[in-house]
This record gives sequence, structure tokens and C-alpha cells, in this order.
Amino acid sequence: MSGSSFGTIFRISTWGETHGKGVGVVVDGCPAGLALSEEDIQLYLDRRKPGQSKFTTKRNEGDCVEILSGVFEGKTTGTPISLIVYNKDQRSKDYSAIAQVYRPGHADYTFDQKYGFRDYRGGGRSSGRETIARVAAGAIAAKILKEMGIEVFAYTEAIGPYSIDKSNWTPELRDTNSLYMPDTDAAEKSAAYLEEKMRQLDSCGGVVGCRVTGMPAGVGEPVFDKLSARLGQAILSIGAVKGFEIGDGFAVAQSVGSANNDAFCNRDGAIVKETNHSGGVLGGMSDGSEIFFRAAFKPTPSIASTQKTVTRNGEETEISIHGRHDPIIVPRAVVVVECMTAITLLDSLLMNMTSRLDKIKDFYQK
Amino acid sequence: MSGSSFGTIFRISTWGETHGKGVGVVVDGCPAGLALSEEDIQLYLDRRKPGQSKFTTKRNEGDCVEILSGVFEGKTTGTPISLIVYNKDQRSKDYSAIAQVYRPGHADYTFDQKYGFRDYRGGGRSSGRETIARVAAGAIAAKILKEMGIEVFAYTEAIGPYSIDKSNWTPELRDTNSLYMPDTDAAEKSAAYLEEKMRQLDSCGGVVGCRVTGMPAGVGEPVFDKLSARLGQAILSIGAVKGFEIGDGFAVAQSVGSANNDAFCNRDGAIVKETNHSGGVLGGMSDGSEIFFRAAFKPTPSIASTQKTVTRNGEETEISIHGRHDPIIVPRAVVVVECMTAITLLDSLLMNMTSRLDKIKDFYQK
Amino acid sequence: MSGSSFGTIFRISTWGETHGKGVGVVVDGCPAGLALSEEDIQLYLDRRKPGQSKFTTKRNEGDCVEILSGVFEGKTTGTPISLIVYNKDQRSKDYSAIAQVYRPGHADYTFDQKYGFRDYRGGGRSSGRETIARVAAGAIAAKILKEMGIEVFAYTEAIGPYSIDKSNWTPELRDTNSLYMPDTDAAEKSAAYLEEKMRQLDSCGGVVGCRVTGMPAGVGEPVFDKLSARLGQAILSIGAVKGFEIGDGFAVAQSVGSANNDAFCNRDGAIVKETNHSGGVLGGMSDGSEIFFRAAFKPTPSIASTQKTVTRNGEETEISIHGRHDPIIVPRAVVVVECMTAITLLDSLLMNMTSRLDKIKDFYQK
Amino acid sequence: MSGSSFGTIFRISTWGETHGKGVGVVVDGCPAGLALSEEDIQLYLDRRKPGQSKFTTKRNEGDCVEILSGVFEGKTTGTPISLIVYNKDQRSKDYSAIAQVYRPGHADYTFDQKYGFRDYRGGGRSSGRETIARVAAGAIAAKILKEMGIEVFAYTEAIGPYSIDKSNWTPELRDTNSLYMPDTDAAEKSAAYLEEKMRQLDSCGGVVGCRVTGMPAGVGEPVFDKLSARLGQAILSIGAVKGFEIGDGFAVAQSVGSANNDAFCNRDGAIVKETNHSGGVLGGMSDGSEIFFRAAFKPTPSIASTQKTVTRNGEETEISIHGRHDPIIVPRAVVVVECMTAITLLDSLLMNMTSRLDKIKDFYQK
Repeated sequence: MSGSSFGTIFRISTWGETHGKGVGVVVDGCPAGLALSEEDIQLYLDRRKPGQSKFTTKRNEGDCVEILSGVFEGKTTGTPISLIVYNKDQRSKDYSAIAQVYRPGHADYTFDQKYGFRDYRGGGRSSGRETIARVAAGAIAAKILKEMGIEVFAYTEAIGPYSIDKSNWTPELRDTNSLYMPDTDAAEKSAAYLEEKMRQLDSCGGVVGCRVTGMPAGVGEPVFDKLSARLGQAILSIGAVKGFEIGDGFAVAQSVGSANNDAFCNRDGAIVKETNHSGGVLGGMSDGSEIFFRAAFKPTPSIASTQKTVTRNGEETEISIHGRHDPIIVPRAVVVVECMTAITLLDSLLMNMTSRLDKIKDFYQK
Repeated sequence: MSGSSFGTIFRISTWGETHGKGVGVVVDGCPAGLALSEEDIQLYLDRRKPGQSKFTTKRNEGDCVEILSGVFEGKTTGTPISLIVYNKDQRSKDYSAIAQVYRPGHADYTFDQKYGFRDYRGGGRSSGRETIARVAAGAIAAKILKEMGIEVFAYTEAIGPYSIDKSNWTPELRDTNSLYMPDTDAAEKSAAYLEEKMRQLDSCGGVVGCRVTGMPAGVGEPVFDKLSARLGQAILSIGAVKGFEIGDGFAVAQSVGSANNDAFCNRDGAIVKETNHSGGVLGGMSDGSEIFFRAAFKPTPSIASTQKTVTRNGEETEISIHGRHDPIIVPRAVVVVECMTAITLLDSLLMNMTSRLDKIKDFYQK
Repeated sequence: MSGSSFGTIFRISTWGETHGKGVGVVVDGCPAGLALSEEDIQLYLDRRKPGQSKFTTKRNEGDCVEILSGVFEGKTTGTPISLIVYNKDQRSKDYSAIAQVYRPGHADYTFDQKYGFRDYRGGGRSSGRETIARVAAGAIAAKILKEMGIEVFAYTEAIGPYSIDKSNWTPELRDTNSLYMPDTDAAEKSAAYLEEKMRQLDSCGGVVGCRVTGMPAGVGEPVFDKLSARLGQAILSIGAVKGFEIGDGFAVAQSVGSANNDAFCNRDGAIVKETNHSGGVLGGMSDGSEIFFRAAFKPTPSIASTQKTVTRNGEETEISIHGRHDPIIVPRAVVVVECMTAITLLDSLLMNMTSRLDKIKDFYQK
Repeated sequence: MSGSSFGTIFRISTWGETHGKGVGVVVDGCPAGLALSEEDIQLYLDRRKPGQSKFTTKRNEGDCVEILSGVFEGKTTGTPISLIVYNKDQRSKDYSAIAQVYRPGHADYTFDQKYGFRDYRGGGRSSGRETIARVAAGAIAAKILKEMGIEVFAYTEAIGPYSIDKSNWTPELRDTNSLYMPDTDAAEKSAAYLEEKMRQLDSCGGVVGCRVTGMPAGVGEPVFDKLSARLGQAILSIGAVKGFEIGDGFAVAQSVGSANNDAFCNRDGAIVKETNHSGGVLGGMSDGSEIFFRAAFKPTPSIASTQKTVTRNGEETEISIHGRHDPIIVPRAVVVVECMTAITLLDSLLMNMTSRLDKIKDFYQK
């Protein structure tokens, strides 16, 4: 309950600073019997790894995961799975500049206010490296979901002013470009735009979309733990996310009931919806249709341009942040969104198993 | 952990169905020594009460709160505060129509999928009356915040296509119209628009804005329990909310770092920010500036127009929902947003008290 | 998390003071589909009701439970069940004596230390009436367990120096005497002993035993949430309990491994244990044999004899507590132990449903 | 919530198996600003290390702790502290005997029942090595308590039939013998008794006592999270503990109110108790006097004598467990009890900071 744990039954507890010894996560509540190897997890970590393109930092982070516990003879045992990724890039550097100065758009000032001081090496706990732990845990959740027929698919929807063609895009194209944008034309325009921003020593924001198929209906809780609300917390807890919307999202504010309500119909004996303005969630529970949401990411706050700021003592000064920083957060955040979604959905599926007495009796009578 | 509780230290547990005996909430973790009366709470409940205007239902709900425990000689004792609002409008009605038919945009279908059956009287647990419990608990949180110098102020920002003038509006005007819109011109246009929708047997959506002043810096947790993430869950858990954004929100996706970063400066010895694109939260912790966010509400799903749907057995049919339903959810939801915000902020403030060892020692040495 | 809630999935939140408007509980996470009436609950409440014999207080408490939510057409809906028992005996009394004086053995002093003041009417929140809420919630849990073939049976094992014959007692005898002692001879001796204590204006302690049959093996968690540990918390949280032991309990300290280990054997194809020194729990998980534990209750602290104590201001004084107080807590606590056990076991059974991936897949594939 | 975490604000999550790569713990919610080094923690780990005497196993476990995160420039940062102890003794061994056979008194059978299979190498997750993580985390809690003037002191009270002289023992003697028994005479008799048990290829049980001084009054919660109940869970969650009692414990069952109630008196202006039958807790909250409790440990279940048991398939067989096993658990468990106590008390102290509004206002107004 102290802020570095997430989930109720499938519960992850993360730790680590960007320039400490490493980052890691303990996954408690992973069901026993899942075939799990380090490769399963590494696959996901590689998608957030830096150095994949000219738009991601050149740091040779490596980010190799090691399973420390909870797996025996290739299968999860039901006990906590401890995962570690050692930091490779710990060479001692001169941090004196940022140790005393608050970087705009970063958590330096708020950390000092909360804790009285901070680990100033590269952002410490609030660095983007914190998401390694999310991805490592999420890879496990995603593998379980897949075995249950549930697919989570996140992608870059927009970079600055360039968006995929929402009515005509191809999921398969996502992995053909380093921006993870499933629309070649938009990806090219975005790349050119990013190069321009880099020349201007600036950065830019973007949007990640996420779609989930195969989710059974009735999962999620009706009041505070609505599926949409828990997804909202999960996604908004990713650094740099400033907005979350599900289904038609903010557009519903200008819609009318007769257009926004999704009619139910019978298709080949199954109850389905004719449209999906709701984004797959009704009253906080999955409605059996595709779950769809979007998240807005702010521009990378670390920029080489000169910015006004103050020192810890309140003296006004200027700062320009050099070093290897992505000009955009979105492409490497795609897999983070996917993983936080997988964790949230799996936890909700597990929670949901206790909702009906007949099914509980059934479970124990076998 | 079963979905009807919210908060870690200041923790509320709500209960009740729209056509059952009543709705209520148990507030555990309210600090001892707060002067509290039923009037303090009633004031907030009256703001969500129906029948305030032609745009809210005519039901004479009354909604009088009763304090059942946790207050002694006018002060909170530190033990659970149980609050109840009896339902006045329980006359037995003919629900046979909706008992067997799934209302589009409602939780009827998902409830049946989750629990095997449902309380079909007027929506049961997923009715808007569920928010009474949130408001009753939130009134207590808001009173504590006020004593600490923290003000939470929510308002109607937009109804359908009509929005307040964001650069020129007056908080004081909010309570001068039944739409809780702090801009007289926008309120008049919105009222006309709503009347048109009512004539068309339709409904419409809108946006609620919320601003918090007086919040000390450094409150909130850096990873999963970011202040923005917990506010996100709190607000997205309100029925009909489909989007949440903080600070510049979705606009950041098209911004650049040099514009989006808020420069720090020294104003009369205090470290403050020159702008507030962040909406008062940096790295998940309050940054001392105004906290600002927006929430998108979908149109009321209950409309008198004829809609396609199915019965529980999957037979296609039509439904038109008569009765007393607001053509818009937003005005009565303003106080709900305010209350969920107050609960979230108070809980974060309490959680934050344990973050520094020097302050803990100080606390116990007195 | 603020101390008046218990359980993770089947979660109860209690409220109420002895001389306030009433006491109650919200049960969240009760599975849908359980047939439930007020009579089901009243049956358990009647077992803790005062006035059953000369050894229980004469107060006409009534203690009639009312279901306020969560049940529709006779069945639980899966949403929170709110239960209330109004206090009948609220007539204004003169509490000035105990308002300013700390009763020995009571929580008066510690309440003042924690909260700065207290509801001094009859003990407020720390009165024995607080257990009404536990019993009301536990009655629901016990009903579910019964439908799953699990029986929880608590009884008075000892009163003062008189104990049932542990090798020769009859469960059926428990309800034949007002002490709930399943051994007629011991009950008679205990009754005589209690009368003597009453004449001496004194009170005495005792032991409650509890046995659970039908529990499937493998329920409970291996580390902090061991079944024995959670039962320990549940039982030690009942006012006046000062000791808890499971299986052979404190006697193991003087035993040896060769005697204390329970040998496994095969009986008609099933793996069972030849003895049950473990009390039905191995490594924190149920082992399929009878679960058995004992709890020690201190003597009722309210006695009419004169006792030394101090006022709130620290002045030394004397107090003798008159009024209607049981000379022993145990008989009415039997049902409380049974109910806390039922709540703990049900919660563990629900938690346990997510421990194996094959069973989870199975659950969702049907 | 999945069983390997403990605490609400100071929250530990442990992981690891005895013959896996290592064991460890993530401590979330440790306040910022504590001076902390690996030596601080190693000091506690050394007290549970094997090989300290002929009564503890000869394995050269080493058990060197490494701090992986949460400490910067020698001080805790307020973010999660990850601690790891690598297993040294992982050489591949022939486990085929115990892989298929259930050891009596161990969790082999219940693990298989719960999870479908188990890590059979030396007990896996349910080995005594699991307590390394508890001790590592507890060392941090104990250091904080010490800085607040609170001392937790556990010791061996009894081994088999030999107990310290309860009215005449010397805390300082505890660390003078390898049994951690603060009474030289009892320690000598116990040693002789243990040697006899070892010759008989048997093991024996014992009792650990624990005393806490310096605890302020009013800490703990009045209902389910009574200090006594949370200590009970904490201690009963240690493997092999079968009983817990606080204050006079089971003896209260045979006491009377006039003897068991502790009279309050005024000593030099302070309110104190004349006796301490309550063991320092009244109504679930600390009463300012010494907190005192006892825990009963069963005999080590691994013994070299031949025992009856069954294979996984239910075939009856015999087993005798060779290898390096302590003939008694108690001496190495002393520090585990101390550490679980420290964790529980610190968490309660942190929780307690939010109980009074005046103190909260005070906290934020500085």
C-alpha cells in the first residue's frame, strides 16, 4: 500500500533506481503451472530497449532479465517470482549540475518536497527505467492471457500532429518501423517530424492506443474497481501520461444518447453489440466486445534547449540537459501500456472467479 | 478489496441499490476531533439532489442523511462513521419490461454476465443513486481539507457543444444556475440545447472541470499511486465517465518539450512555476501549483426514443425508456467529482505523513 | 485498512457503538446466488444475545437484524450486503462517573491516548456489542461453508478451573445448557463456580474451543497469510482474547519430533494422517484433517468490587462498576469465535481459487 | 494480498526458495532519511545464521545481504529497499527420495494439494530459509524503533522441559550462550537435553518470549487490527509456531477479574499501571507498559528416525531424513520473532499518525 505495488491477487511490487544496482519486481499471486522462461520476458523487454533506432537513446542498456525465484523445472510454482535486471551503465558521472538544480518537467522538486532529499543520479526512482519492472511483470500476465485466448495489442497512434488513419490501419505493420506505428505513411511523416524536433533541440508528445480482444463479458467490479477505472489508474501511473480515455472518450461529451448507446443484437445465437462506443466496458464490467482505450503522453521533459529554473536553494538559474534522451517517449512506451493492461486484466479475471456461488461450489466439488 | 471500497487510510465502503431500502457508506479512518453534523453532509447531498430544475428528474427523493455512528458530542471519534440515506421512492412498480430486456448503454447485460442475475429495479447497484454514498463520504473529506486550507472546486465546463469561455469565467457564477456552469452565456445556450434534446426524446453528454488550491507540494506516491493515477481511478469510477485528463491532458500529445515544461522561478522567496501545463502534479506528486483536471461524461443512456436491443434470452426486440430521467448527467455529477477528489486528496495527505523519518520522530517526541 | 475491516475478498467493515444508534456491518465480496434471509442471521445473533441465563446480562437488547441491501428476491446479488441492528437501550443515563475515570481492564485509557477523547457511554466502540456485527457477517459466511460441506463448531471448553473431559465429550450437549458446554458434569460445576464469583462481586475467565470439519486440503497461503496466522488474527481480535493455539498448541514446546509429526497413511485410497497434532494445518495450508484451535478469554473486566484507578487528570480514585454485566465472557463469545472462523475460512477458500493455472483456464472455458 | 506481503504502510514482500538462486525482500514504505548500511542488516542475519553451535546446522550458508535499491549516500530515500541474499549451497543433489515422498510434519503434501506440484528441493518456499527475508526487513524496522526509543528483545524461554527462571533472569545473559537463553543454568540443562535428543535421532520444541519497552500508549487499532491480533498474525506466520499468548495468556482463563485487572495509579505525575497482566495492550492499543508475549515452536519435523508416510501416489512407505538439520528451531527463531515484532510495531506506529485531526493539522502547518 506504499505506492510501489499494483494489483490485488496478481500483485506486483517494483523497486530500483536508474543509476543504482538494478531494477526489479516481485510478482506475487501468479498461478502455478505456467511454463515460463527468461526468454518469454526478454521478448517484451527488448521492445522497450533503447537503441532500436535514431529516435531512441544510444545507451547500451542491455536489460537482460534474470528469474530469481518462483519457477521450478520450467514452470511457475505459485510462489513469488522475483525478477531482476542489473543496471549496466553505472559509471560514476558528474551529476553536480542536476544535484542542485530542478529540471523542469521532472520530479526533482516534488521528490525533494516529499522526502527531504533525492537520489539525483539521472532521475533515480522516477526515471523511465522504472518501467522495466512493469514490462517484466506484464510479460508474465500477457502470457497467461494469451493462453486464455485474450490478446492485448498497443501501438503508436499519433506522434505530434501525425496520426495513423484511424479507419484504415493494419496491426501487422506496427512492428515494421521503429516507431511502432501501424501505418507506414504516418510513420514516415512522424519520423521526419521527429528529426526536425531533434534538430531544434526539442522533443514532442504523442498518443498510444490499445485494443484487447477475447475478453469474456462480466469481468470488472461495478463501483470503485470498474475495469475502466482500474485501467485508468494503471495507465495514468506510467510516467508522462496526462490523459486516458476509453471507447469514444472525450468525444462522448458532444454526443447524444441515441447515437452513443450501443444497440444489442443477436448474431448467430450470441448477444453482441452493433457498435462499440463504450469501448468494451459497460457499468465497469467488460461487455464482451473489444476493449479500446487511448493514452496521451507528454513530450520528453529532458531537452537540450536552455530552460529557466531554480536551484534547491531557490536561486534562479538556467539549465540545458545534454546526454542521450529520446526525443519522444511514445514508441518505447507502447509495450509498457500493453503490459500494464495485461496486469490489470489478469488481476480482474482472477478477482472475478469468486463472484458466483454456483461456480465456487462447482470449483470445489471437482 | 471487493470493489465497493476506496482509499487506504481514509477508506470508504459503500452499499445500496436504487430501489432497495436505502444507500449508505461506512467511512473508516476519519481522524478524531472533527466537528461534524448531518447538516455538513446534507449541504453536499442537496447539490446532487434531483428536482432542482427542469433538467433534473422530478422524483422527490429527499435524500436526508443520518449519522449512525462515529460522532460523539458533535465530534468524530476516530471510529467508523456510518451514514445512511433511506430511499423514499420504493413503491412497487411494474419492472417486468426491463427485467427481461437489456437497456442499451446500461449495465444490465454485464451484471447478468457477472453475477448470473441482477436486481432489475431501476438499475439496482449501478444506478446513479450509488453516488449518494460517495457524496456523503466526500463531504467529510472536503470539510477536513477546508480546515487545512485546501479547496476543491468542480464545475460544469461543457454541455454538448457549449463550453464556458476557458479564459474568462467566474467561479462565483457556478451556483447561480441549475447547470452549475460558471459562465452565464454558456449556461443559457446549454439550457436551450438541453430543451431541444428533451423535445427530441434524446440526451447529451458534457465535461466537468475540477480545480484544487492550497495543496502542499510533495503529496502523492511516485510509482503506481501517483496522485494523477489515483485521481484518475477515482473519477473514472463514477458511472458514465469515459475520459480523464490532467493539466493540458490530451493536448500534450501535440505539444513540444520547450513549450510543455513549466519553468521554475523564485517569487518572493518561494519556488513556484511560471506556467502550469502539468496541472499541479509532477512525477505523481503535487507540485504546489493548482491541481486541474477534466472528466468527460457520456449522455444519459435512458432515453425515451425507441432503441433496438435483445431480451435476456437473446430475442431481438425494441425498448423506449419512459420515466423521470435527467437529459444530462453532468450538473448533478459536479458535486460527485468534487467529493471523489476530496476523498482521494485527503487519503494521499494522510499517507504522506509517514514519508520522512525526521517528521515521524518529531511527531512522537511531542 | 483502518482497522474496522477484515478479509480480502469476503470483506467485512463494521461500525457502531454500544450506546449510539446501532451497530452494523457491510459485507463486500459475498458471492451472488446465496439464498439469504434475516432469519438465517438472526439464528446466530440469538446465540450471543444477553438474557439467556442468569450468567448473562438481563438487558433486553433485542438485537434484531435488518438486511438493507445486497439481497434481491431472497438471493444475494454479489453487491454489498448492509446489515443493521438498532440499539434499543439508548436511554440517557448518567455516565459522569466513568466519563472521567479509567476503568481497569478496559480500553478507556488507551482510547483517550489514541484519539484525544472517547465516547464514554458504556465503552463506546470497544464494547462487547461490537461483536454483533461480526456475528451477523459470520452467519452469512457459515451458511456458504455449510453449502460447501464445511462445518464450524465452537464450544465452551473451560470456565475457570472447570474443563470438559477432553477425551469424552458430546458436541450435541453444547446447546443443552446456557454455558454452551458440551459436557453436563463440567457445566454444572462451572455454574456453581460462576454463582460463587457473582456472590464475590467478581468475574472469571475461560477457554473456547473450535473444530472445523470438511475443509479441503491445500487452502491457506504459505508465508504471512498462513491459515493458522489468519485464524490467529481473527480470534485474537475478539475483545478479551489473550491466547490462541492450534493443534497441540503450547504443548508442542515440550514434545519431540517423533511424537509430534503426524504420519501419513493410505486409508481406502485416500491420503490421510494417522494423528492430528498439527490441528489440520501444515505449512500454513489446510491438510485435510480436522482444524482445531483454542482461545483463552480473560475475566470480564467490569466488576462490582472496588478497584483502584485514576481520573483522566491523573488523580487517584476508586471505582466499582455496577450494572448488568456478565460474570464471564465465554458463553456468549462461542458464536463469535465460530463466526470469525467462518469468515476467515471462506475468505481463504475464495483466495485459493486462483492458485492453479489449469483450474483458472477450466473455469473460464466453460 | 497474495500471501507473501505483510504490513500496510511499512510493507514487506518476500520471495525465494531454499535451493533456488537466493531469497530476498522488497521493503516499501520505509521512511526517508534513515542511515542504513548492509552491516546494520547483517548483524541481525548473523543471529539466525546456521553453524553457530553444535545445535545448529553445519551448512556454510554465509547469508550475506546486499542492498540493491532505496539507499543513496548512506540514507534511505523513501523508495523501495530491495534486499537479496544469494544462496551459496545450490550444488545439485539427489532429491529423488523426497520428490516423491511426503515428509511428516512438513508442507510437502499441502503444497502439492494447493499448487498441483512443488519445488521439492529442501522444502522450497516453506523452508526455514524463508525467514532470512523477514530478518533482513525486520532489521530495518528495529533500527527505526531504536531511534524512537523503542527496544524489542526476544529470547529463548524454554527448550523442551527446561525453562528460564521467570522471576530471576538476566537479559544480558542471552547472548552468552548459543541457545540465546538468558539464564545460564537453564541453558546448560537445555544443552544436555538437546544432546540426548540428537543421540536419539529426534528433535524437540520450545518457547520464545518477547518484550518491548518504550512503546508510546494508544498505538494499535481498536477492532480487527488490535496490536495483539496483528502481533498474533505476525508471530503465528513464522513456520513451526503453534501458539501465541500475550500478557498472562492462557493463564487468564483461570484467573478472576479482581486479580487480572491492572489498577491504574499516578507515579510522579504519570498515569501507569500497578501490574501488567494485560501484557501492554488494552482494547487492542498499547497501554504504555511493557509489551510481553510468548510463542510456542514445535519440534523440528526433519528427524533421522524412521517415520511412516506415503508417496505422492498414496503408496505407504517409510522415510528417515538425513542431512544437516537443527534438533531445535527455537534459538535461530529468536531473532525472527524480534524482527516480525519490529515490523508490526513500526507499521502500527505509522498507521497511528493519522488518528487525530489536531495532530494532522499541526503536521502540515509546519
